[in-house]
Amino acid sequence: MFDLTGKHVCYVADCGGIALETSKVLMTKNIAKLAILQSVENPQAIAQLQSIKPSTQIFFWTYDVTMAREEMKKYFDEVMVQMDYIDVLINGATLCDENNIDATINTNLTGMMNTVATVLPHMDRKMGGSGGLIVNVTSVIGLDPSPVFCAYSASKFGVIGFTRSLADPLYYSQNGVAVMAVCCGPTRVFVDRELKAFLEYGQSFADRLRRAPCQSTSVCGQNIVNAIERSENGQIWIADKGGLELVKLHWYWHMADQFLHYMQSNDEDDQD
Amino acid sequence: MFDLTGKHVCYVADCGGIALETSKVLMTKNIAKLAILQSVENPQAIAQLQSIKPSTQIFFWTYDVTMAREEMKKYFDEVMVQMDYIDVLINGATLCDENNIDATINTNLTGMMNTVATVLPHMDRKMGGSGGLIVNVTSVIGLDPSPVFCAYSASKFGVIGFTRSLADPLYYSQNGVAVMAVCCGPTRVFVDRELKAFLEYGQSFADRLRRAPCQSTSVCGQNIVNAIERSENGQIWIADKGGLELVKLHWYWHMADQFLHYMQSNDEDDQD
Repeated sequence: MFDLTGKHVCYVADCGGIALETSKVLMTKNIAKLAILQSVENPQAIAQLQSIKPSTQIFFWTYDVTMAREEMKKYFDEVMVQMDYIDVLINGATLCDENNIDATINTNLTGMMNTVATVLPHMDRKMGGSGGLIVNVTSVIGLDPSPVFCAYSASKFGVIGFTRSLADPLYYSQNGVAVMAVCCGPTRVFVDRELKAFLEYGQSFADRLRRAPCQSTSVCGQNIVNAIERSENGQIWIADKGGLELVKLHWYWHMADQFLHYMQSNDEDDQD
Repeated sequence: MFDLTGKHVCYVADCGGIALETSKVLMTKNIAKLAILQSVENPQAIAQLQSIKPSTQIFFWTYDVTMAREEMKKYFDEVMVQMDYIDVLINGATLCDENNIDATINTNLTGMMNTVATVLPHMDRKMGGSGGLIVNVTSVIGLDPSPVFCAYSASKFGVIGFTRSLADPLYYSQNGVAVMAVCCGPTRVFVDRELKAFLEYGQSFADRLRRAPCQSTSVCGQNIVNAIERSENGQIWIADKGGLELVKLHWYWHMADQFLHYMQSNDEDDQD
């Protein structure tokens, strides 16, 4: 269980409805501070959020998740002046543009990882932070492949690999920062977007997707917050069809035992 | 079964031993042409390869997998002048630099996907090509997370997501290009490299990895070619500890049934 009361939450959001709906739910949780980092300004949404809980301090910054690491470091130094510290970092910036592989990967994967690498020292228990939680909001096609969105799926598989790697006890036991992911199923954000398949053979499938049965952004946002409150380090959740399911993680590399045994042993007589 | 006899093979290779050893085995398979695209020149290796089979034509080009798509398109137009066509594209360029997330992702994932997107039209049966095979040489930590190499693992998870997505019958049935991946276990290429962990807490583990029991590059190269010869579209293989294992792929998104049923139905009365 993770108690959001009094927490300082930093949300790297896209312009989509999921981030706004998730933020609305966060505002009902008595959090102390909410920083919203988003590519475009949306003062109306901020006002709407503030009206839910006037005593929670909301900060807004425009943020380009694809900025260079050095620039990002300076950027978060500014953010920390207002936030003091960050308990929860939510990574929700996302792009699905199969015609632009670079932008899709840079936004969904590289940008998210650079953000984590930049914010983590501020949260790290051994570096003066108080520990906390990193939440990657991602997609079910980061778990299973997509016949339509090959680049997007690749980026989201990457998010899962990063989440699971960083959640390793090797890190968590030292820095006290738990890492988790919530994979959203089809949600009503596609409807207004023109979606291109990776190859044109998939286009009719992509077109059809826009009219497919989808959960609402509000129920998805509610379940993202439910997952956060119920989460333990390393967990992956699926928020789909209005429900929430804990993923039983699969391991493929059965031949690893001997290797791991070696890596964990204290034998000084290492093989060459 | 995939018969390499007479084939035109294009190998996007890194400077590591796995690519060279794999190429040596390919040279014993009576292939007609081998194009090696690599970041640095290595005339000695080319001479060694040529000596294995003088009648196979070998071409070498320096190649930066991170070049822009437009540039890449022009580059492969040149390659195709010599190759006429490509039956097999092997993607083996790889980088593990946890201090440089951008370079690691760009090389292992974005660069590979851009290469595939550029070469695919030349192979596509519906675009004048003859179909063929795309082979992504990747790592077991693209299947299971890594406690040490978070960025590398993320990039390799992405490769698996892309491979599985592009192998969908939706594409394969149209373009005739099969897609597969071979995930190498710990192989004796780490030994000479200084490996940095994503966070310093993992560094002693990374240092230890350099002296861990590893398979040789030659047995790994042999098994990569074995996997190619035995492959069917969409398969993922593990080449580890001198062995070769077909991966039984796991699907997580059980709630997808209703959604997929909708997507595959011909019902005109779509839900909104």
